[in-house]
Amino acid sequence: MSDPFVPDYSQPPRNRRVLLVDRPQGIPEARHFAVDDAELPSTGEGQLLVRNVYLSVDPAQRGWVADGANYAEPVAIGSVMRALAVGVVVESRHRDFVAGEFVYGWLGWQDYAVITPGQVMYHIREPSAPLSAYAGVLGMNGVTAYLGLRKLGRPEAGETVLVSTAAGAVGSVVGQIAHNLGCRTVGLTGSDDKVALCENHFGYDVALNYKAAPVAELLAGHIPDGADVFFDNVGGATLDAGLRAMRVGGRIVQCGTASIAAWNPPPQGLRNEREVLTRRLVWSGFVIFDHMADFAAAVGELAAMVRQGQLRYEEDIDHGIEHAPGAIQALYAGENRGKKLIYIG
Amino acid sequence: MSDPFVPDYSQPPRNRRVLLVDRPQGIPEARHFAVDDAELPSTGEGQLLVRNVYLSVDPAQRGWVADGANYAEPVAIGSVMRALAVGVVVESRHRDFVAGEFVYGWLGWQDYAVITPGQVMYHIREPSAPLSAYAGVLGMNGVTAYLGLRKLGRPEAGETVLVSTAAGAVGSVVGQIAHNLGCRTVGLTGSDDKVALCENHFGYDVALNYKAAPVAELLAGHIPDGADVFFDNVGGATLDAGLRAMRVGGRIVQCGTASIAAWNPPPQGLRNEREVLTRRLVWSGFVIFDHMADFAAAVGELAAMVRQGQLRYEEDIDHGIEHAPGAIQALYAGENRGKKLIYIG
Repeated sequence: MSDPFVPDYSQPPRNRRVLLVDRPQGIPEARHFAVDDAELPSTGEGQLLVRNVYLSVDPAQRGWVADGANYAEPVAIGSVMRALAVGVVVESRHRDFVAGEFVYGWLGWQDYAVITPGQVMYHIREPSAPLSAYAGVLGMNGVTAYLGLRKLGRPEAGETVLVSTAAGAVGSVVGQIAHNLGCRTVGLTGSDDKVALCENHFGYDVALNYKAAPVAELLAGHIPDGADVFFDNVGGATLDAGLRAMRVGGRIVQCGTASIAAWNPPPQGLRNEREVLTRRLVWSGFVIFDHMADFAAAVGELAAMVRQGQLRYEEDIDHGIEHAPGAIQALYAGENRGKKLIYIG
Repeated sequence: MSDPFVPDYSQPPRNRRVLLVDRPQGIPEARHFAVDDAELPSTGEGQLLVRNVYLSVDPAQRGWVADGANYAEPVAIGSVMRALAVGVVVESRHRDFVAGEFVYGWLGWQDYAVITPGQVMYHIREPSAPLSAYAGVLGMNGVTAYLGLRKLGRPEAGETVLVSTAAGAVGSVVGQIAHNLGCRTVGLTGSDDKVALCENHFGYDVALNYKAAPVAELLAGHIPDGADVFFDNVGGATLDAGLRAMRVGGRIVQCGTASIAAWNPPPQGLRNEREVLTRRLVWSGFVIFDHMADFAAAVGELAAMVRQGQLRYEEDIDHGIEHAPGAIQALYAGENRGKKLIYIG
């Protein structure tokens, strides 16, 4: 057996791939995936061969493997798990890219990817931050936070912004951007450890442990005057409580539904239309893929904030592709502290 | 006993008033009101004495008498039922009004009202339609339809607009405005008679009787490609079905929750956050009182449509104030055909 951390240069490189082998009903677990070992595909005209370095683990991957309507075709059984990653261009047969450059995009959970430029979400021409950051705070997570908050949440100075998964890869960026805009920020998170992280590291005015008391009670106690913006990544009872803590004219950005274990059979909850009506809420769904035209500009803004010390981020990095199959489950269990990545460089 | 239709001119006029005497848990019924007979209040400096002619009956009155948070203070027990009405100024002690002019506003369910100009919602300086129209299609109902659809629904030509209570005082105006904008209009209503009214009189492309089959089935059959705008006045299962028939980027205008009999205990329903997210909906609450600055301009637009034959309306008029106490209950039972008014002139 060769050591997976030491490439065997006596042989042509092989491509370890994490394949979806079974369709989960709820949150994907390790058993739904298998790691195989395939030959490197050849690089056609107009294509790039990319060696992946940081594989991204995202809550959204749950939706990408789910059966049924979503915003993207479900990953086919037997194919490489859809994932974002940062990699280095090994071979370029496209004039816009040269070997040695870094890219962030749809590289999949595998060692190597042969892609077209359309699969590149961001071309990292001049890295101004550690490479890993481009898979998190300067990647889909950070841009989702930036554009979702700015375009749909539209917070103004002095307003109160409520954030669920406040310490997470998206939530922690939402909280800091809102703070930088002069808002009061209130975070919901799942442990006292993360409460401290939110308050001491991510600049939240208040962070609340939703496992310590019902969310409605926590919000009544800490934001009796309500919230103007609720950036929600979890749905469920947290959403219901947050919705009932909104001020008139409040905006809810629905960016995820992480607290709902399964959508089949359809779960029940409180009816919310009266709250939407009487509080004159604007409750919008945000999917980053609708906003790709703004992606690069947002990365630029976020990178500037990082350089100026206005945007901090945490990373939770596993080493070795064998960690990928169980990574989504671990993410949903809240085991990570910061953006979850898998280093395979 | 005097005939209530023939004023007794031998006596100073008396003011019959419909008082709220008990707080309903759900839909207000006749037993929650009592009609009394009081002396006319005197008209102070800056005030107007108005003789009411058409009393308005509105679904929103349910919310105005409900206990608990709403967009307005609940009507106090023992006071005149809050209501809109059209009346004639009998005595003016304010320079902007002269006796003989008509006004529409917060006149209450009573024969006479002493008000300040702030209670006038629209000063009918030059009536261009029958007086009753100013309490419906040119009143709160029509303006709600116009501004709710235009400002929150934002339909574009060629889009599909779904309307609940399609034959109602608000819905029928929504459908016609959308039709005039070049939209395909689909109405949900509660009888075959109203289906015919919608299709033959209010210009709906399709009207569907929600009592004939589950709404989800009706929508799947008639708008398989979904709706771009859903103007919803009812909430509940109809909302849930409509929400699941929305196209990506669709707008839901929540204008009422008429299908929910009571909010205490809080009713349960399908969880809707995944639909908001994956369909990238914008689900907004509309309350006309946020848009009073646009009221007069909207009346002007609506009046022009009526004059040009582009906006039709139906009225269902009872005669005599004794019909007021049971009127809200009858409205919720769908017994009316068109805008429900009570003539007391």
